[in-house]
Amino acid sequence: MKEITGLGSIAELRALLANMPGPDEEALAKWAEREPNLTKPAGSLGRLEEISRHLTAWQGRHPPRLENVRARVYAGNHGVADLGVSAFPSVVTQQMVLNFAGGGAAINQLCRAFGMELGVEALELDKPTADFTKGPAMTEAEFLTAFAVGLRAAAPNLDLMVIGEMGIGNTTSAAAIAHALYGGDASDWTGRGTGVDDERLKIKIDVVAKGAKANPSKDGLEVLRCLGGRELAAMAGAILGARLWRIPVMLDGYVCCAAAAALYAADPRALDHCLVGHVSVEPGHRALLERVGKRPLLDMEMRLGEASGAALAVGLLKGAVACHAGMATFAEVGVAGKG
Amino acid sequence: MKEITGLGSIAELRALLANMPGPDEEALAKWAEREPNLTKPAGSLGRLEEISRHLTAWQGRHPPRLENVRARVYAGNHGVADLGVSAFPSVVTQQMVLNFAGGGAAINQLCRAFGMELGVEALELDKPTADFTKGPAMTEAEFLTAFAVGLRAAAPNLDLMVIGEMGIGNTTSAAAIAHALYGGDASDWTGRGTGVDDERLKIKIDVVAKGAKANPSKDGLEVLRCLGGRELAAMAGAILGARLWRIPVMLDGYVCCAAAAALYAADPRALDHCLVGHVSVEPGHRALLERVGKRPLLDMEMRLGEASGAALAVGLLKGAVACHAGMATFAEVGVAGKG
Repeated sequence: MKEITGLGSIAELRALLANMPGPDEEALAKWAEREPNLTKPAGSLGRLEEISRHLTAWQGRHPPRLENVRARVYAGNHGVADLGVSAFPSVVTQQMVLNFAGGGAAINQLCRAFGMELGVEALELDKPTADFTKGPAMTEAEFLTAFAVGLRAAAPNLDLMVIGEMGIGNTTSAAAIAHALYGGDASDWTGRGTGVDDERLKIKIDVVAKGAKANPSKDGLEVLRCLGGRELAAMAGAILGARLWRIPVMLDGYVCCAAAAALYAADPRALDHCLVGHVSVEPGHRALLERVGKRPLLDMEMRLGEASGAALAVGLLKGAVACHAGMATFAEVGVAGKG
Repeated sequence: MKEITGLGSIAELRALLANMPGPDEEALAKWAEREPNLTKPAGSLGRLEEISRHLTAWQGRHPPRLENVRARVYAGNHGVADLGVSAFPSVVTQQMVLNFAGGGAAINQLCRAFGMELGVEALELDKPTADFTKGPAMTEAEFLTAFAVGLRAAAPNLDLMVIGEMGIGNTTSAAAIAHALYGGDASDWTGRGTGVDDERLKIKIDVVAKGAKANPSKDGLEVLRCLGGRELAAMAGAILGARLWRIPVMLDGYVCCAAAAALYAADPRALDHCLVGHVSVEPGHRALLERVGKRPLLDMEMRLGEASGAALAVGLLKGAVACHAGMATFAEVGVAGKG
């Protein structure tokens, strides 16, 4: 695959979606040959087996490895933040970007703890997206520019990409996307985000309802353009970019998964290479994961974003890879099988 | 505290239980002062906050650390294994001990991946415990000897102990302990272990029912002596030994937690320093954890034992410690608070 530097049109993006690679069947066959011979009762490592299989399939490498892991946090500002949907002011997005740069945020500690490279991309923070209760959040050009930032984040030597976000107001955007894609009541998809009180939650539900009404398209990419933010478009781009290089992806919380869900609506194969790090306490997250057919790895009652839940789950992947690659087989050590 | 080399009587053991230290309130106060100032919405790291608090309280150190982590796997053989309760023959216990020594088991890979020291103690494998359907599995002397092996495993410089087991037939022992402690039907507490078929499961349930009937005491330590195995007694000893040095403990699956439950029955404060790494697919594990008031950290559908679920959860602890100790405060980096 040649490197992608930009996107000229939505049609170009749809062409990339139409040409996504599938899992590596040859590597999978090697995984399936080795796993039953490891010195343990069949299936006794549970989801660790599912994980090593997933990484094998999407790295196209057996045994899989986790040496080069890249985390990307995308930051954006939202027009709807001015409507009173968040407990924090919009200026916090920029302040947290500086905190990431200084190494002081949760994601910095988690990346250091698990040996991951962290990059943060601040997406035109001085230009919040338009208020989506009045029309599309982004023009087509704005959407494609942000999407392309994510597309460029993958590189062929990576073993995993971990994706997350920062953006005051973006759980409102996530809720609007979910409501637009799946219907129901706006309140089904709207939670307290960073911790809004009852009054702000009411405003937030109203904003979500108005947003979906003002932007009635059900097309995944259109929903993402009209109700997303730049960081959501970039996350969707990073998911697709990783797929094109056949690199597995770890998704984070509600906002990250809402961006992923929009991609899934555009093509239901688009998340086949993704694992979901955790389910957050945002009430819509669990329901959203059911819609895209994903089971989260962790349930730690987190709701921070910044890829923190995804990064935490990388520890589980390290364990899964170590077991599949390193364990002895029954034949090697003369352990008796089931009989 | 002086080092414990052996136990002369059950009364001596009860005296140790009566004199267990509590959490370090001074260290806890420092944790409570720092945590709300970290650059994140209050509570947004969910259970990671609960974990760093737990480690602070039981290490008696703020910030907590995870540099010296010791994993101990205790292995024992069971008289009831000859009754046809397992899919594997008893000889596998010894074979797996050799596999641990050679570095080929799952727990070896997990300890390497998370930088933990691993020790395995094989407890008189050539002398299986007595068939508990006919009377006590261990004499008082046998029980105290095995318990003392665990008691000696802790050391004052450790940051965490991870505890697990290996022993063909020991899910039968765990089920019998749970049935004796909590009643109900033997089938409520009996699962497929390494993967027995319907016929062996029926035998297993019958053995569990007979065991509880033949050993009617409800006293926690007596239940452990009469229905446990040497590795279960040693795990209970390791839990208590760690407590006496005030070292937090990570418990593993059903067998480990059954040993812990017996200790809890003897004194409900006995597990206050313990976290539970995971809930296994053994159906009795979840119910047992409810009885001892513990929430597991992971649900990975594992059922291997050997401390594998507990070891895997150490990754979460590393993340929790890294966040609490390393994050910047609002004041340090000038991030605006909730307002």
